[in-house]
Amino acid sequence: MRLAVLGAGGWGTALARLLVHAGHEVALWTRRSAHAAELTERRENAAYLPGVQLPERLAVTDDLGKACHMAEIVVLAVPSFAMRALAATVVPHLSATTAVVHVAKGLEPDTGLRMSEVLFELLSSQPVFALCGPSHAEEVARGHPTAAVLAGASTQVGQVVQQVFMTPRFRAYLSEDLLGVEYCSVIKNVLALGTGIADGLGYGDNTRAALVTRGLAEMARFGRVVGARPETFYGLAGLGDLVVTATSRHSRNRRVGERIGSGERLERIVGEMRMVAEGVHAVPSIYTHACQLGVEMPITEAVYRVLQLGQAPADQIPALMERPPRWE
Amino acid sequence: MRLAVLGAGGWGTALARLLVHAGHEVALWTRRSAHAAELTERRENAAYLPGVQLPERLAVTDDLGKACHMAEIVVLAVPSFAMRALAATVVPHLSATTAVVHVAKGLEPDTGLRMSEVLFELLSSQPVFALCGPSHAEEVARGHPTAAVLAGASTQVGQVVQQVFMTPRFRAYLSEDLLGVEYCSVIKNVLALGTGIADGLGYGDNTRAALVTRGLAEMARFGRVVGARPETFYGLAGLGDLVVTATSRHSRNRRVGERIGSGERLERIVGEMRMVAEGVHAVPSIYTHACQLGVEMPITEAVYRVLQLGQAPADQIPALMERPPRWE
Repeated sequence: MRLAVLGAGGWGTALARLLVHAGHEVALWTRRSAHAAELTERRENAAYLPGVQLPERLAVTDDLGKACHMAEIVVLAVPSFAMRALAATVVPHLSATTAVVHVAKGLEPDTGLRMSEVLFELLSSQPVFALCGPSHAEEVARGHPTAAVLAGASTQVGQVVQQVFMTPRFRAYLSEDLLGVEYCSVIKNVLALGTGIADGLGYGDNTRAALVTRGLAEMARFGRVVGARPETFYGLAGLGDLVVTATSRHSRNRRVGERIGSGERLERIVGEMRMVAEGVHAVPSIYTHACQLGVEMPITEAVYRVLQLGQAPADQIPALMERPPRWE
Repeated sequence: MRLAVLGAGGWGTALARLLVHAGHEVALWTRRSAHAAELTERRENAAYLPGVQLPERLAVTDDLGKACHMAEIVVLAVPSFAMRALAATVVPHLSATTAVVHVAKGLEPDTGLRMSEVLFELLSSQPVFALCGPSHAEEVARGHPTAAVLAGASTQVGQVVQQVFMTPRFRAYLSEDLLGVEYCSVIKNVLALGTGIADGLGYGDNTRAALVTRGLAEMARFGRVVGARPETFYGLAGLGDLVVTATSRHSRNRRVGERIGSGERLERIVGEMRMVAEGVHAVPSIYTHACQLGVEMPITEAVYRVLQLGQAPADQIPALMERPPRWE
């Protein structure tokens, strides 16, 4: 099968490589022509996926039309803030049946829209999927066993796309709950900021586990109200990705939280980061949305208080413990 | 309130200390008189909870009758294999209304019985509770925010016991699903052996997250068939404790799995351990039980194959990935 992966960050590059190894014909597109030339010549994405060799059969280009030509599946692998612009540019190059798979884990900053909502606005009839779940690019590139969720509405096309991503080391589970999977991927970043804050305050495994568990409960409360399926939250895109994001050294969101917990200012941290910590943008959207819906999300609220209102991290985690006794 | 904590391992000691700080009158019992003398004099449990000072008001004794005298709540803090013998000895010292709280996370080795089943056989009318959840003793002793589940049938007494354990840094959630909470605490150890094996094989966060998520799904499948409430598995005793056990450096079960994944033999590892890795004993019980009930538990089966049948770890994790494509 012929595929295009648009966006040559770590995840786009790792997916392009995976798809080539799965036997497909793959073009990897990057906006910058110097980057395309570098990847083509060095066969390594030194900036975003250092030390991983790119297969000879992987075509790298800065020409969007060329990348998408005849592609049956197009993978959109750019950060959430850049999704609308990319989708608008790519539409003319798609056929009516090209399946579009996005892999972003955020909301559109100004509108708070989910990525599939943005895509449905711009695409004509193309089926839209989200590929989410606990999948560090570096580990996928090293062949570590990985399981992800492929979410979308159209089940027959979905099964074809699922098969395309399946390898002995990468397993895609199908889900019809696109809305739920997308919200999971967003809210887990907010919660990872919270567990990072607890880490930065010097707390350990017990606190992190309590935040993950109660965080998943508030994520599921939110999900029920917006119409997601509860089981989505206990699956790979929810629980699975939350576990990775909240415990991993690699996680940008957790690390931002940790630095805030240690007393650094958000502005300074964000200013220093080259890659985006999607959770930082999602915090006000999710918190405001929860307030409007009347959903109680105490951990999200604590993160909001620290990040948006500048309240002291050390006051927020203990405050979560001092709520009245309850049934689980 | 007056309480007795029976068993001066790390967790018993940390709980006794917590209860004293919560304002209660507490006796800590240890079987060995030399240990009781050492704890009384040094005010430290150097073997099991080094570096943590024991409060002056904590009474330490090797006299079971003295420890239990007038106690309104008795906490049984011994490993699962020792629970029956302790309960049999303690019964004569209890009043009809003494609440009994156990904190063991295993099954009785020969019978496969849950701890509350063992206790119900031996006690007369005393209400029985299990206190479970993500709670490393060392972290509770250092005042890290911790949340646990208190499970038991009698709700009014339960609320009293809940209040006894509540402090600004320790939060107990009530649950009526004693069976579910106990099975969670057992099965999460089996799954932690599995994630440990993956760690030992050199896999990373993606694999661990997939095993945790799919492991929780199989734990919940088992739970539904034996009559547990599904939400228990997504709570502190299930998900919460699984996250800690599967990701923590402190976890004995994870560490046993890791050593097996690196190629060591189980017999040698168990021979060297001073403290019990409860999961090792639980594997055959849970696997056999699941087979009898017709519940599919592929990760538990993989752990069983490695631990009980001596099959190669390196074959088992990839085998989990090669199952047919599915819906999540």
